[in-house]
Amino acid sequence: MRVSELGELGLIDLLAEMVHSAQDSRSVSWQKLMVGIGDDASAWQGNTSTQLATVDSFIQDVHFSLDIFPWEEVGWKALAVNLSDIAAMGGIPRYALVSLALPGDTEVEDVTTLYRGMLELAQQSGVAIAGGNISSALLVIVDITALGDTGIHDRHLLTRSAAIPGEQIAVTGYLGTAAAGLEMLAEQLQFDPETTRYLRSAFLHPHPRIAEGQLLVAQGIKTAIDISDGLISDLRHICKLSQVGAQIEIKQVPVHPAVQTSFGDKSLELALSGGEDYELLFTGSAETINRVKEKASCPITVIGKIIADKIGKVNLIDREGKRLDFGKAGWEHFTTR
Amino acid sequence: MRVSELGELGLIDLLAEMVHSAQDSRSVSWQKLMVGIGDDASAWQGNTSTQLATVDSFIQDVHFSLDIFPWEEVGWKALAVNLSDIAAMGGIPRYALVSLALPGDTEVEDVTTLYRGMLELAQQSGVAIAGGNISSALLVIVDITALGDTGIHDRHLLTRSAAIPGEQIAVTGYLGTAAAGLEMLAEQLQFDPETTRYLRSAFLHPHPRIAEGQLLVAQGIKTAIDISDGLISDLRHICKLSQVGAQIEIKQVPVHPAVQTSFGDKSLELALSGGEDYELLFTGSAETINRVKEKASCPITVIGKIIADKIGKVNLIDREGKRLDFGKAGWEHFTTR
Repeated sequence: MRVSELGELGLIDLLAEMVHSAQDSRSVSWQKLMVGIGDDASAWQGNTSTQLATVDSFIQDVHFSLDIFPWEEVGWKALAVNLSDIAAMGGIPRYALVSLALPGDTEVEDVTTLYRGMLELAQQSGVAIAGGNISSALLVIVDITALGDTGIHDRHLLTRSAAIPGEQIAVTGYLGTAAAGLEMLAEQLQFDPETTRYLRSAFLHPHPRIAEGQLLVAQGIKTAIDISDGLISDLRHICKLSQVGAQIEIKQVPVHPAVQTSFGDKSLELALSGGEDYELLFTGSAETINRVKEKASCPITVIGKIIADKIGKVNLIDREGKRLDFGKAGWEHFTTR
Repeated sequence: MRVSELGELGLIDLLAEMVHSAQDSRSVSWQKLMVGIGDDASAWQGNTSTQLATVDSFIQDVHFSLDIFPWEEVGWKALAVNLSDIAAMGGIPRYALVSLALPGDTEVEDVTTLYRGMLELAQQSGVAIAGGNISSALLVIVDITALGDTGIHDRHLLTRSAAIPGEQIAVTGYLGTAAAGLEMLAEQLQFDPETTRYLRSAFLHPHPRIAEGQLLVAQGIKTAIDISDGLISDLRHICKLSQVGAQIEIKQVPVHPAVQTSFGDKSLELALSGGEDYELLFTGSAETINRVKEKASCPITVIGKIIADKIGKVNLIDREGKRLDFGKAGWEHFTTR
């Protein structure tokens, strides 16, 4: 059935029913939710910790192509990129509002499949879908607002503006895997089944580092960002807001063996500027980062250090210890290149 | 300058600067804001009252046309429709997150003009623009999430689901004025300057009934909705969620003399199903509504009553006291008519 046949109100009822079925009575978010989908706004009981909010758009033919993305992964990833922003603040995600725009000839089953993917991640993360909005449009747009908090009163946040010269720079997990996955899917490259599954999942089905973000806060890390634009580009955000420079030892940048094997020399470029890995990039003293390493359940790799340099400058040090000129890395919307 | 020339980061800096300049140190929202635009998420000090959140899209060629809308009014109205949802819950709006999608060839000045319109309303309403997101897209999309609260702990909310048979139905202000304004602008109808100004402003520059929503709560009203789709359509939402029916005395529906004079017999249709007036539609006992009338600074008009009827049924009573068959009124996205 097409969305235009079901109508807006029919579609809202259908999606509200899905969200209702997926609610988890053990989740604090659902317990505190007073008014969910269907009223003018959503309402929940407040608490006294620091509140967090973030919004991200997931737009067809800008952020995703339906040639590559199954509908389920559109829903998963649209929510994942938002929860990743809450994770990058060290927060606990609680609620999400979903603003959906769809062409009238979209199949209703595709929309419910999208919601299924989104609800799977919401349930895994204890997030209640508290409300949203549906409009018609010429293309599919999933605009999600994620709300969260710090859990404990007066707990500090991970910001982009607290990096200090001398601190180490570290990342969770591996870099370049999502970009390798995109390249594999877009170019229809053939790899062994295990590599295919791994790369595909990294790009279509990223897992926001929610537990790791909270671990960073608990261990005393002050500065973090999630890697969405690419390592260099996102590190530049930290450097700019912290008014420092940085240097990365490229031989330390963690590239997964499957990416190294499949993409060879190109792996480094993917890792430095590929983006969309949604790993956490953070800074801290060697001692603090060692504590994080001991407690984390994912790889933590030191890749460089914060230095006093031109504000926002990110230097790359090659295997021989020389500075590399990498040109413009990371991407920006709009800018003609 | 085109957005594509300035680039995403340049545009964010520019808009962040505008928001920063517009911040109001006397506003509680700004006082409690800990992290605003520029980090992964926004953060503010929590409180213990009920939290409210709502999201609404404002999409080019769906919700507005740039042939009719000056950029300033795109910003004003995109925020207004969201604050109206907080008002319809009886809440106090506190924060907004702005997710903007723009074609690369949009003039930067047009974007800052849009922000100027939005910031004007934000300042008037004590709302802090806490963050947002910018993407490229083929058309202009302003997706705003408004966050608010009830101010006082345990204060009740205005919902759509609390109407009871026997209650009166009332509205703030006049109905059909926004639809009259749209028709005037779209058809380039010529009226006297005062009428033109009034109709134009009703459609392009609606004032969300924030103070009135809080007044309704304080006086004991339990049920309200803002009129966005149209009187009949929005009353149907209340009836459906409250599991009741309703009847409207069409002679009571408040139409402004300027609309009556300019549109004659068509005024009633505009008032019943025109939509976008962003007035509040609410129900309550005669006694409660009389108290609201005494304290409100805008017209409050009783237009009918809640009855025990087929759930969701809205009956129209004509000037002779007979039931009218109005057909399908109010509009839905998607549905082919």
